[in-house]
Amino acid sequence: MTNKNRQARDAGSRLKIIPLGGLEQIGLNITAFEYEDSIIVVDCGLSFPTDDMLGVDLVIPDVTYLLDNQAKVKGFVITHGHEDHIGALPYILKVLNVPVYATRLTLGLIENKLVEHELLDVAELHEVGFGDTIELGKFNVEFIKTNHSIVDAAALAIYSPVGTVIHTGDFKVDYTPIYGDAIDLQRFAELGREGVLALLCDSTNAERPGFTPSESSLGAAFDALFAEHKGRRIFVATFASNVDRVQQIIDTAYRFDRKVVVEGRSMVNIIETASKLGYLNIPDNTLIDIEQIRNYPDDKMVVITTGSQGESMAALSRMADGNHRKISITANDTIIFSSHPIPGNEKAVTNVINELLQRGAEVIFQDVHVSGHACQEEIKLIYTLVQPRFAIPVHGEYKHLKAQASIAAQLGIPKENIFIISSGDVLSLSQDDAEVRGKVPTGAIMVDGLGVGDVGNVVLRDRQRLSRDGIIIVVFALDMYNKEILAGPDIVSRGFVYVRESDELMNGAIEVVSATIDGALGRGQTDWGRLKTIIRDELGDYIWKQTKRKPMILPIIQEV
Amino acid sequence: MTNKNRQARDAGSRLKIIPLGGLEQIGLNITAFEYEDSIIVVDCGLSFPTDDMLGVDLVIPDVTYLLDNQAKVKGFVITHGHEDHIGALPYILKVLNVPVYATRLTLGLIENKLVEHELLDVAELHEVGFGDTIELGKFNVEFIKTNHSIVDAAALAIYSPVGTVIHTGDFKVDYTPIYGDAIDLQRFAELGREGVLALLCDSTNAERPGFTPSESSLGAAFDALFAEHKGRRIFVATFASNVDRVQQIIDTAYRFDRKVVVEGRSMVNIIETASKLGYLNIPDNTLIDIEQIRNYPDDKMVVITTGSQGESMAALSRMADGNHRKISITANDTIIFSSHPIPGNEKAVTNVINELLQRGAEVIFQDVHVSGHACQEEIKLIYTLVQPRFAIPVHGEYKHLKAQASIAAQLGIPKENIFIISSGDVLSLSQDDAEVRGKVPTGAIMVDGLGVGDVGNVVLRDRQRLSRDGIIIVVFALDMYNKEILAGPDIVSRGFVYVRESDELMNGAIEVVSATIDGALGRGQTDWGRLKTIIRDELGDYIWKQTKRKPMILPIIQEV
Repeated sequence: MTNKNRQARDAGSRLKIIPLGGLEQIGLNITAFEYEDSIIVVDCGLSFPTDDMLGVDLVIPDVTYLLDNQAKVKGFVITHGHEDHIGALPYILKVLNVPVYATRLTLGLIENKLVEHELLDVAELHEVGFGDTIELGKFNVEFIKTNHSIVDAAALAIYSPVGTVIHTGDFKVDYTPIYGDAIDLQRFAELGREGVLALLCDSTNAERPGFTPSESSLGAAFDALFAEHKGRRIFVATFASNVDRVQQIIDTAYRFDRKVVVEGRSMVNIIETASKLGYLNIPDNTLIDIEQIRNYPDDKMVVITTGSQGESMAALSRMADGNHRKISITANDTIIFSSHPIPGNEKAVTNVINELLQRGAEVIFQDVHVSGHACQEEIKLIYTLVQPRFAIPVHGEYKHLKAQASIAAQLGIPKENIFIISSGDVLSLSQDDAEVRGKVPTGAIMVDGLGVGDVGNVVLRDRQRLSRDGIIIVVFALDMYNKEILAGPDIVSRGFVYVRESDELMNGAIEVVSATIDGALGRGQTDWGRLKTIIRDELGDYIWKQTKRKPMILPIIQEV
Repeated sequence: MTNKNRQARDAGSRLKIIPLGGLEQIGLNITAFEYEDSIIVVDCGLSFPTDDMLGVDLVIPDVTYLLDNQAKVKGFVITHGHEDHIGALPYILKVLNVPVYATRLTLGLIENKLVEHELLDVAELHEVGFGDTIELGKFNVEFIKTNHSIVDAAALAIYSPVGTVIHTGDFKVDYTPIYGDAIDLQRFAELGREGVLALLCDSTNAERPGFTPSESSLGAAFDALFAEHKGRRIFVATFASNVDRVQQIIDTAYRFDRKVVVEGRSMVNIIETASKLGYLNIPDNTLIDIEQIRNYPDDKMVVITTGSQGESMAALSRMADGNHRKISITANDTIIFSSHPIPGNEKAVTNVINELLQRGAEVIFQDVHVSGHACQEEIKLIYTLVQPRFAIPVHGEYKHLKAQASIAAQLGIPKENIFIISSGDVLSLSQDDAEVRGKVPTGAIMVDGLGVGDVGNVVLRDRQRLSRDGIIIVVFALDMYNKEILAGPDIVSRGFVYVRESDELMNGAIEVVSATIDGALGRGQTDWGRLKTIIRDELGDYIWKQTKRKPMILPIIQEV
């Protein structure tokens, strides 16, 4: 590798690093690495809509830049199997079918998605082992073992002619993981010795001092809770994708001679895939079907469930509000949240907890969770092993990136060598220098139902307006020859006001509209676009004065 | 008092305590106390809408029960001047104009509201001092000094013929408050000695161990921050109503020879009222107008601003997103959040912080705030002084009420004497026993613009639907005699899909509708309601198949 690098460093070309999904409020994980005729793309994540994206199901990156450079794109290299790293793949592969490289479990989860989208036969998938290096045009990419809240997470050593770049992916340092090895710190050290041009390092926990505890530290916590709640039925809510967590819950259940039910679609899917691929070790006769739950007493049951984030349609939320078909919460239930609310979900989680308490259940909320991301001391460890010339904090909100930038500076990296780059920024590197040179188009594409990108700002603005004050529709039929009203005006409203309560208001509205139309026709107005505008203005004024609301007003003229 | 009580205890009637606003997801603070022909009402708060109450401005309690018993209602007794305790007064006084009793600042803030609603001349307001007792029918009510995040907060000793009930209001124990005295613990002790029937105690912080620190502990923190950020412009974001906090910021500003600008409408209003009434002591030449800000260098300025909760229209949010007319954030600004996010606001606050950081400002987020509510040790102190026979945890979510119930049990109150009561529950007490007997109607009334209660579930459901997938309107004119289409069908959509992108979809929709109408007319269908239903179904099917979306479909038939 070193040889190859040295050779190529003589070339005059530069390496470009381009975040295509952004580090903005919607952070989509997708980053292009470009050198001459070669582009590789790290991760391809989706995101969930922000509050103002009404009705939108999910958000994927705009890959116009990749499509414009299609011939260069050698493939996707995926760090791990979380939605925000693999979720947009099925959408993007439909328009840009290039090979995908990932570790075993990550690939298994990608395959599940491709099956849903009927793309499995079309896509070209390659399994990569830790320590393996793949060749992709002018790049070589080595997969390095890390730890994270999903197994089989990888960091990437990206060897370019300009130098080696390390992308950590999402990671933590776990000396005693549940499945597989600890993070390959030796390899990070070796690469550091050989010389690393740039480090893209996970910033999610960069504001938190100390170390993130090991996943395996939770085993004892579960044991203690199960011992304490002996006679009761136990529920554990956690992230569907945290296979190691599920393993520990199953292990504790087995030790306490309890059967396990898995509830929630995503949980069932991931556990199925993980067991099939050998990442989960479930003792015989431990898992039972939810239908069998009635055959076991409370003290012989554990339910592992989705809904730890208070998602309204998830299994736990349905149990909490009494809408679950198979499970009713009772005063003999203990619900353990093995999770921490993702920012923005705090209120939803609290609502679920309150509902569970109101049903008499006991709720345990604290201290049965560890993060999957590196805290400050772990970040320092990686920087110290890797000794990069340039630091590029990634993953997390702006404040997290800033926090990592401070850590990098504290470790002696000159401020001018630390880059917080925004979506579309082209960070151009030689072996000696780096600077942002230019910008490529990027953006977030909204997916709503089957529609990809057909919901834009106009549609969103209309939905926002409709959601606030509803709509008033004014319809009338006009005789085109005699310029007189043949039918109407009729007024229909939705989402504005409960109509029976407001006959007076609506009668007034019809008077205003009738007078407006008569006036306009009397003045010889024949420009229907103009007439609509006048109606909108007059009726809007009337409604605002009466109600201080601004519903959307939609005049429709039928020409007869 | 004791005499009067003893007398009356011989009567056979019972005292009823009825929360009228609820302890549910929308917790409106309003509680009726009823004895024979007398009702008094403690507090009259509003709440802000939950996420699913689209377009709603605020929520007030349904006081049907009070209106049905109008002749009995002797007045409102208000504990303090926060919105969730006084905000619904103008709405309720319009339909139930009874006297209002409150301390000086609380009354000042109520007056501001009544002026806005043009009710000041109509309402009957009475100022009550700490230690004063007012007579309201069969009740006597004594105002007792407490501490809270707004000055002039009171607990109430409610003397009824059945016994004495203490309502703490929102409170903390502050031995060294900024303005006025510490909480009157001696009076709580005296009352406890005399015998207290029931205690309604603030539960907000009942999950937090220890004591809430004194408001005055923040003075040194502000001094340290001002010393550290000497050359920079300083902003402090805090709650408009926290007059003591504002006093401390002004004091520190004065010590550091800085001028103070106050920004944000609610902040300006409350500071004006508080200064006028003597609760704020502002040194001469300290406050300057925002227009003068350019005349002072950064290191001579402090801006106290609203927006500490990330409210999108508040001053700080407008500065953060670059939409403030008078102030631009620069890299020489330090923004101190002297606040803690209220549950549900975490994400909004984080977004503002990220925006400020992106403008280069420094943001200080932690450790410059203390809560206004009692933690566990303070709650224990009050219980131990008051020694109530019955415990009724109030204020806070269900989990907080549960937490206080545990504390009460831990202090030796028998479980059957602890009541977590829901909205509308009638807790009926004699001097010896208490039980929930019956339920009265309660509810949340939505206020939208000028409309009070005209937005109900139907309107909300329509707004939710409109917000998710928009609306498709189908219009056509029918010749009533010949049963044929005279104009249309025309299709108009809003919030559904960007129309130019979807000509094909819309043309298909017109075909479906035309075929449906022709078919129905051909079959002799003349029931227009039925025809509309058929159109809705057919078009809905088509749209779902094409897009997997369910917009509202609204057929309108014009009869000519």
